This record gives sequence, structure tokens and C-alpha cells, in this order.
Amino acid sequence: MRYVKKPVPAHRVSYNPRVHGTPVLSPRGRARWTYATSGVDLRARSRALAALLESLEYRAPPDHGRPIRAPGHFAGMIRVGRETIAVTTDTVGTKVLLAEQLGRWEEVGEDIVGVNVNDLAAVGARPAGLVDTILCVRPDEGVFRALGRGLDRGMRAARCTLLGGETAIVPDLVRGIDLGGTAVGFFPRGRAPVTGARLSAGDVILGIPSVGLHANGFTLVRKLLDDRAVDLAAPRPGASEPVGVELLRPTRIYSTIADALAGRPDVHGFAHMSGGGVRNLVRLHARLGFVLDHWPVPPPLFRWVQSLGELPDEEMFETFNMGIGFVVIVARHRLSEVRRRLARAGAPDALAIGHVARGGGVRLPDLGLEYAQYA
Amino acid sequence: MRYVKKPVPAHRVSYNPRVHGTPVLSPRGRARWTYATSGVDLRARSRALAALLESLEYRAPPDHGRPIRAPGHFAGMIRVGRETIAVTTDTVGTKVLLAEQLGRWEEVGEDIVGVNVNDLAAVGARPAGLVDTILCVRPDEGVFRALGRGLDRGMRAARCTLLGGETAIVPDLVRGIDLGGTAVGFFPRGRAPVTGARLSAGDVILGIPSVGLHANGFTLVRKLLDDRAVDLAAPRPGASEPVGVELLRPTRIYSTIADALAGRPDVHGFAHMSGGGVRNLVRLHARLGFVLDHWPVPPPLFRWVQSLGELPDEEMFETFNMGIGFVVIVARHRLSEVRRRLARAGAPDALAIGHVARGGGVRLPDLGLEYAQYA
Repeated sequence: MRYVKKPVPAHRVSYNPRVHGTPVLSPRGRARWTYATSGVDLRARSRALAALLESLEYRAPPDHGRPIRAPGHFAGMIRVGRETIAVTTDTVGTKVLLAEQLGRWEEVGEDIVGVNVNDLAAVGARPAGLVDTILCVRPDEGVFRALGRGLDRGMRAARCTLLGGETAIVPDLVRGIDLGGTAVGFFPRGRAPVTGARLSAGDVILGIPSVGLHANGFTLVRKLLDDRAVDLAAPRPGASEPVGVELLRPTRIYSTIADALAGRPDVHGFAHMSGGGVRNLVRLHARLGFVLDHWPVPPPLFRWVQSLGELPDEEMFETFNMGIGFVVIVARHRLSEVRRRLARAGAPDALAIGHVARGGGVRLPDLGLEYAQYA
Repeated sequence: MRYVKKPVPAHRVSYNPRVHGTPVLSPRGRARWTYATSGVDLRARSRALAALLESLEYRAPPDHGRPIRAPGHFAGMIRVGRETIAVTTDTVGTKVLLAEQLGRWEEVGEDIVGVNVNDLAAVGARPAGLVDTILCVRPDEGVFRALGRGLDRGMRAARCTLLGGETAIVPDLVRGIDLGGTAVGFFPRGRAPVTGARLSAGDVILGIPSVGLHANGFTLVRKLLDDRAVDLAAPRPGASEPVGVELLRPTRIYSTIADALAGRPDVHGFAHMSGGGVRNLVRLHARLGFVLDHWPVPPPLFRWVQSLGELPDEEMFETFNMGIGFVVIVARHRLSEVRRRLARAGAPDALAIGHVARGGGVRLPDLGLEYAQYA
């Protein structure tokens, strides 16, 4: 969410921020669920957050660090001594409730890492450390062991160290378990933050595929599953594994890929397609637009979710990643060189999905979709 | 909580970790509440956390930062490039439920800062940035505005910048609102982390007073208030302000005080007396002991809480700060110089509360109390 008034760069929100139209809600019939009807009132959230930010007036003296201005971006950044560090914080959201339903915890443990390091990656920072936060009703040894395995797998993929954490037993405060974390990254010698400031019209937008829903949109998905009485143990039509397992697949970790590209003069921007979907691109530049005229066919899982709720494309593309989890924006004349580099770094599957144009916002012309802002 | 097996320094726990004796529980009679009877099973928590940490095997390569070994300490630390950064994460815990009952949010907003920067202070790091996490059922403009005012006041006291945050509307996951944060600090040129490694027998333990319960022990306190049907709008005997307001007073921020002393060769250790009470001192050294033979008379609020539940001293001193919120340990021959410095830095009220001795653990000889370990 972009804050114009106050330079608090990464005060991000979990859910897609625009609620449109009047949702048709009939609990027993063919209900049309949206974030609003699933209980997430985003206009109220925006107003509340604006009120919080309005109260923040203090500016620390420069000997306590010099914040880097990049309002609304994926990570907060601050210069301390001779280094710039980047900080991101995010939770796994209500995906944990699906994990609980299925009794599988390794995937969401890994998500703690993914949701955070991918935001670091989007400013070109290299992840160094992570702290996790586990709020629970009661600590279960088996659950924690599985979370540990997932965390370990995520750390390995991101080449990141667990620096600590907080485990709170707060039965009066949470239902089940809440998983979150904060990641801290840095910029290796000579590398500047990648903010999108060097974007220009004509740049090519490359998309790196996701591996499912990652950790966004689960409040909505869970309502749909419930509403349609979906059997999580059975595969959806056309799939081979149980749909519960398919939905739970952990967030793909893009940080090593971005790390291999950040700092190159021909790499002009990154975006993590988390909560807000394609709207995340708007966070990169206020006066340039993003034309996504080669979006690949979304994987069948997304179309299946869409069919459960008869959701419009507009809602889908601003709630889910729709098949593309991370974006790299590149100077057109260096495209093949960057693609070779991407392939070596672990993303041979990157594909050109659009280009940068004059004007603002995000457009998917084939679907007639247009988003003017991030939030 | 000190992890011997795995070097995960700051995976801290919210509550005092030892449950002793068999609590006598009779809901209508003179119940004796402890953490165990108030719903926080700490042995189960320790086992679960050990299981999580056992699963963590990965070590990141040194070009992703070099972690500083200080197992069980107040903050995780990592060397990135030419600087060392410290990271702490903590929540306000169930104090938020009291805030909700009273409809007052500014205090707990300020606590988000205090609970985190005081842990940074305890390793001698200077706070640079904070990210907050707000999980809520529904976002309320008035609540968020008050939280913002509290955050602003805390940032001002800690000279810290809000770098971002996460606001999640997760009605299926929380009751009310959960407040947490992560603080990032650094070590100004020439300053090394203060870990307690330079402690030696004979050092003087100085205590800086707290301003109430800060943000620890509230699951227990709330049960006592409920059990005794305490009127939060009335003052407790001998007090002038409503007891609800007295309990809600925000955590005193010690980070500027510690910042003025850290790096001095005669300052050997710091401790933040948060969850775990006096046990926190054990985190500083494995083979030295802490003799607290001049503990001041605890402020009346603590004795009143104690009387509500007929809690033993042992439970009180490992759950609450009992009047001392932060500790500075000093070479004896430099005591007066350090005290002058403390007075100038904002702690003219620091007082000698004990000394460092051979052997391990924490002792309060006047009360016959002994604690062998942190967790």
C-alpha cells in the first residue's frame, strides 16, 4: 500500500485492497464471495491505517540511522553506519487454518521464510537473518517439529540464518496458531537498492512462475471451500494430488534468483506478487504503467478456485498471483543476456509477460482489466 | 531461553518458564493462580520449542552474513558487510486484552516499541528501525489512531524510525487485536556487542526502576482481576488513579540510557527484566552468579497483585519485574563514574541492587530465593 502523505515505506497490507461492486451473497445458493463478504473490510482497513500513520510524526536523528525513502515499497530500508539494511515483516495469514485442518505444518513453516525474503528480494536486498513469531493456544511438539523442518527448508532455499524468535502461548488471543516473521537483508558492496527508479517505457517485464497460491487469498479460498463443501483429501478435476495438499504448497523462494541479478544496470525493477496480485507492480513507479499483454494461461488451480466462487477476473488478478510469483523488469536491449542469467540462477522458466509504458497503473488488455493503484 | 544445543540466540519465550509446585485451584474459593493454572503450560512450550530448534540444521554461507554467537541472549546479531546488526522480536502479549477492556490503546502502542528496543539495549545496540505487526478482527479508526500516537511516543523515546509494518485483518485467527514488532539496531563505530562476556565476580549490579508491570505477566494478572472481580475503574488501596490505568502504564524505554553507556570498558553487562523476571540475568553468563542482596522494596502495585492470588515470592520474581526493569553491571572501581553517567543519560534513579559472584544462577538471599537457569 502506497502512502503518499507519510514516508513509511513498507507498511503493507495482507489482502488485496480494492473491493468493487456489490457482492451477491446467499449463503446456501451460488454465493459470490469476495474479500468483503469473506469478512475482510478493506476500506475500513485503509481508513484505520491512514489514522495510525497520521499519528506518526517523529523523525529520528541521523545518528540513529538514515531511512531510505521508497514509500510504499516492498521493504523498509535504512542506512546504518557503512551499510544499508532492508527489513520486511509478514505473516502466513489464514493459510495456517488450512494447515491445521490438514494437520500439515511443514509447508506453512517454509512460508514464513518465503513471504518475507521475497519482499527483501523485491528491493534487491540479500537476506541475512530471519526472526519468527509463533502465537499459539498450546504448544504441540509434533507441530513445532514440522514447523522447524519447514523453516529449515526455507532458510536453505533463501540462504538465510534464523537469528531468533518469539513463541507466545496466548490462548486468550489467538485461535489455533499464527505464524509470522521479519527478515533482514543487506546490499553487498557496491549494490544499490532496486526501487524501480530506473524503469523506462519499453522495458520488458519478465515473470517467474509461482508454484500455486503461495500464502495469499486464503480467507477467501477457505470460505469457498467451505461453501462448496470441497473434499480436501480428493484431487480437483484434472489433478492427481489431494486439493488440500495442492493448496498448501509453500511459497516459491525467489531471493537467490533476484540476488543474482540485483545490482546489474540492465535490471530496472523487481516485484513480489503477494497480497494485491498484479497491483503490486504499481509500487514500483508512480508515473509509468505496466502492460501485461502476454500473461500466460493461469494454472488450472486458479481457474478452479475462480469457478468455486464465480469470481470475476478482476478480483482474481488482484487477490492471487495467477501463476506469476515474481517479476523482473529489464532493459529491452539486454533481454537475452538477463534471461541467460536468470536461467543460471534458477529461473529457466521466466517468460516475457509485458512491457513498461507511459502513464500509470497496470493493464491486462486481453482481459480488459485495469488497476490504477496498489491500494 | 538459553539453547545449548543450537546457536539460535534470541528465540525467546514470552512467559516465565518454570512452573513449580502443584497449584491449588478452586475457581470460587481462594484460588492460587500460577502461569500453569492460567493456561500457559510452560513445560510443554519448552518441549515444543526444543523440537522446532532440533529441526533447524542449515547454516548460511558467510556471504549471507556472519551470525554472532551469543546463545540465549536478548537479541540475535549478525555481521553484514562492515556493520553488525541486532534484531529482536516481541509482542505485547495479552496486555492488549486489558487495553481492550479499558478502551485505551495508546499505552500498548508505546509498548510495541518498549518491549523490542529494550532487548536491543540489552546487547548494547542502538535502535535504528522498527516494524510493527497488527493482527485484528476488524480495523477501527479510533483504535489505530491511538496506537499510532503510542507508537510515535515510543519511537520518540527510543529515537527510532518506523520502517514499515504488517496490518492483517484475520477474524478467523485472532480475538480482538494482537500487537507485535521487530526492532533492528546497530553498533556505532568502534562499539562491540555487550554480551556479559567481560563480567567478573565482584562487579556491581545496578538496577533501573520500572514504571509498573510493563508488558509481562498479564495472562496471570487478568485471571486474578477476574477471579477477584476487581473494579478496574477504582484505585487499589493506597493509590490515586484507577487500577486499570496503573496496570496499563507503558514499558519504560531504556535504550537511550543503555546507548549512552554501551561501549565503555567498565560496563560489563545489561539485562532487560522482561518475561522471566530476575531469571533474565542468567542469560548473561553461564558460570557466574547474580546475588541480589539489595533489592529495593517492590512498589505497592506488585504486592497488591501478589495478594490477589496469594502468589509466592518465587513466582512473583520470575514473572514480574518487581520494580527493576533494566540492569547495568559495572566494574566496582568505576561505580561512581558510571552512576554519574547514568544520571546524565536519564537514569538518576539507578541503584545498586547486588553483585556478581562465582557459581551460577540468581539469588535473592533476603527472600531465600534461588533460580538456577533462565528457562
